[in-house]
Amino acid sequence: MSNLRSGMDLGLGDRCSHIAFTRAKETFANRAGRPGSPILQVGASFANCMDYGAVKVAMTSDGIGSKIEVAERTGVYRTLGFDLVAMVVDDLVSNGFEPANLSNILDVDYLDVRVVDELMQGLADAAAAAQVAVTGGEIAELGARVRGYGPGMHFNWCATAIGLLPQGLRPVDGLALEPGDVLVALPSTGFRSNGFSLVRSVLGRCLGDAWHEQPLAGFDTWGMAALTPSIIYAPAVLGVLRSGVDVHGIAHITGGGIPDKLGRVLRVRGLGAVLDDLPPAPWFMAELQRMGGIDDRQAWHLWNMGTGMIVAVGRRDAERCAEILRREGHEARVAGRVVPERGISILGGGSREVRFDLRG
Amino acid sequence: MSNLRSGMDLGLGDRCSHIAFTRAKETFANRAGRPGSPILQVGASFANCMDYGAVKVAMTSDGIGSKIEVAERTGVYRTLGFDLVAMVVDDLVSNGFEPANLSNILDVDYLDVRVVDELMQGLADAAAAAQVAVTGGEIAELGARVRGYGPGMHFNWCATAIGLLPQGLRPVDGLALEPGDVLVALPSTGFRSNGFSLVRSVLGRCLGDAWHEQPLAGFDTWGMAALTPSIIYAPAVLGVLRSGVDVHGIAHITGGGIPDKLGRVLRVRGLGAVLDDLPPAPWFMAELQRMGGIDDRQAWHLWNMGTGMIVAVGRRDAERCAEILRREGHEARVAGRVVPERGISILGGGSREVRFDLRG
Repeated sequence: MSNLRSGMDLGLGDRCSHIAFTRAKETFANRAGRPGSPILQVGASFANCMDYGAVKVAMTSDGIGSKIEVAERTGVYRTLGFDLVAMVVDDLVSNGFEPANLSNILDVDYLDVRVVDELMQGLADAAAAAQVAVTGGEIAELGARVRGYGPGMHFNWCATAIGLLPQGLRPVDGLALEPGDVLVALPSTGFRSNGFSLVRSVLGRCLGDAWHEQPLAGFDTWGMAALTPSIIYAPAVLGVLRSGVDVHGIAHITGGGIPDKLGRVLRVRGLGAVLDDLPPAPWFMAELQRMGGIDDRQAWHLWNMGTGMIVAVGRRDAERCAEILRREGHEARVAGRVVPERGISILGGGSREVRFDLRG
Repeated sequence: MSNLRSGMDLGLGDRCSHIAFTRAKETFANRAGRPGSPILQVGASFANCMDYGAVKVAMTSDGIGSKIEVAERTGVYRTLGFDLVAMVVDDLVSNGFEPANLSNILDVDYLDVRVVDELMQGLADAAAAAQVAVTGGEIAELGARVRGYGPGMHFNWCATAIGLLPQGLRPVDGLALEPGDVLVALPSTGFRSNGFSLVRSVLGRCLGDAWHEQPLAGFDTWGMAALTPSIIYAPAVLGVLRSGVDVHGIAHITGGGIPDKLGRVLRVRGLGAVLDDLPPAPWFMAELQRMGGIDDRQAWHLWNMGTGMIVAVGRRDAERCAEILRREGHEARVAGRVVPERGISILGGGSREVRFDLRG
């Protein structure tokens, strides 16, 4: 695995994120007593909830990283909007906010009208699925500052979404979490927008540079499987929040996988989780793990392994929560429970138990 | 001038922006009757004003383009935050909104802690100057998808700012503009974040590839002159808006220069402007125009030529407006007036008259 860069620089990434967050915190005082003042809670988990008087607003930014290379390889640009929208709106809803508006920035080397048109169509489709309005956008021609695969237009694409706290609801912050809470999992049909350094590395190593053209049953090619668009969970999860179900925590499974993202929620109260009935990983994801000889720990850390979101609810609300999510079209299932012992244990599905410690 | 790419692809850029905006408009219905619904006014000029009930919110996104190459050349990263913050907060205030929060996305090829630290320090300094809180951020390691000058860390940097309409005020939309209104100009000491393709092209052609190291009186080097940080006008302009001065329109002079940006404001009512006392261009900007043999029309279209913002006010309020801006530290001056005839005439300062038609 030493030839895989993925995840190798996490220490450096953490240091840089820490620097960025420390500097950002210095700026919170700039809005003291004025609209836009960040509301700081235990563990600074709501630095991005802002007080706009009668309205509480949150904003979140993300990009879709090197998944874009898969679009450049396959020539299919229509679905990336789902990845872009999912990354930001599902982050908002995992904090209990209703996504409302989205702005996007497309950095390109040079412009190809056909590609831009497909990207923007996809963005509009995804915005409809997420029930948000695209109210800002910028296309920047950056020439040689942007590079990618093959001869076409290359680009990097990111978005910022803003949302608001629904009337009568509080942010979902993990503070109400307790042992015995039930973890309801929402299946993911693909990699969403994370772990693509490893995806590309394994496919290139095993199938050669033109890996995206290699046939794959059910997907035409490996390229199309890797491109599987992200599911947007926000409207369904919002349905749960609005239903009165007692939601204690929500984890959007992105970079760092279940260990990091569910871990962050569990850490708020120093708890752990046993996950013994997670949805299975999409078969091409499992196959990729096998092909690459990726050990379970690394796979769970870098990929979502088939779960895109986990909702923690009080025991009595578990079935009702799953039922609402199923009505919204997701094959939600009770996948595990919160336990007093720190750490996350993942078992079942034929695989060995995998255990992750939760530091601090 | 045919070897200068700058501004040559404006037609293609316009087409892509049109596609993006058309698709974005389709998504406005997604929020109909709900928070985040865009408020559409005459000419769709307020598509980015969103109704959050008691609060009206706007969001804007932008990046700092290839000015980043100047930082990569000089090794000075501390001031780019001013460019990044200025681009978005000054757009918000030019629509009458008070900037409150800002999120940023830093795309890098690989991480250099020292560079990230300087960038984030600069961002915090600029946020203090703009009186906004940095409440979101993302650093994305994109490897070979990001490129730049020299051997160091390369990056592209963009931001989204959100702001709100101050209590009791309306968006500034140009609808109240009328002949006789006075145009108050705020000087810019450098290029802000626009026109750098032309800056780099002229300097490379005239001074060679190491142009940034060439000495320049008062700036140490040409690199440091080109890097001159953007002035942040938002707090001063907000002071004018809050003072009760009758503001009819505001133009933030970015890409497209005065012809495009003041033109956009004038076009709302089909009016024109005579600018006969604009601040002089910074001398290195004038020198660069001379060195490159750039004709006046192109220079005014691609560079701000020394004016970063123009505030249009009723005749009686002109001196009061300028006085408030001067108290806030800007050498504001009455630079011209609104006239009934379409088009923008720029005269004086020793240069020939330059006239720009305003289509539509």
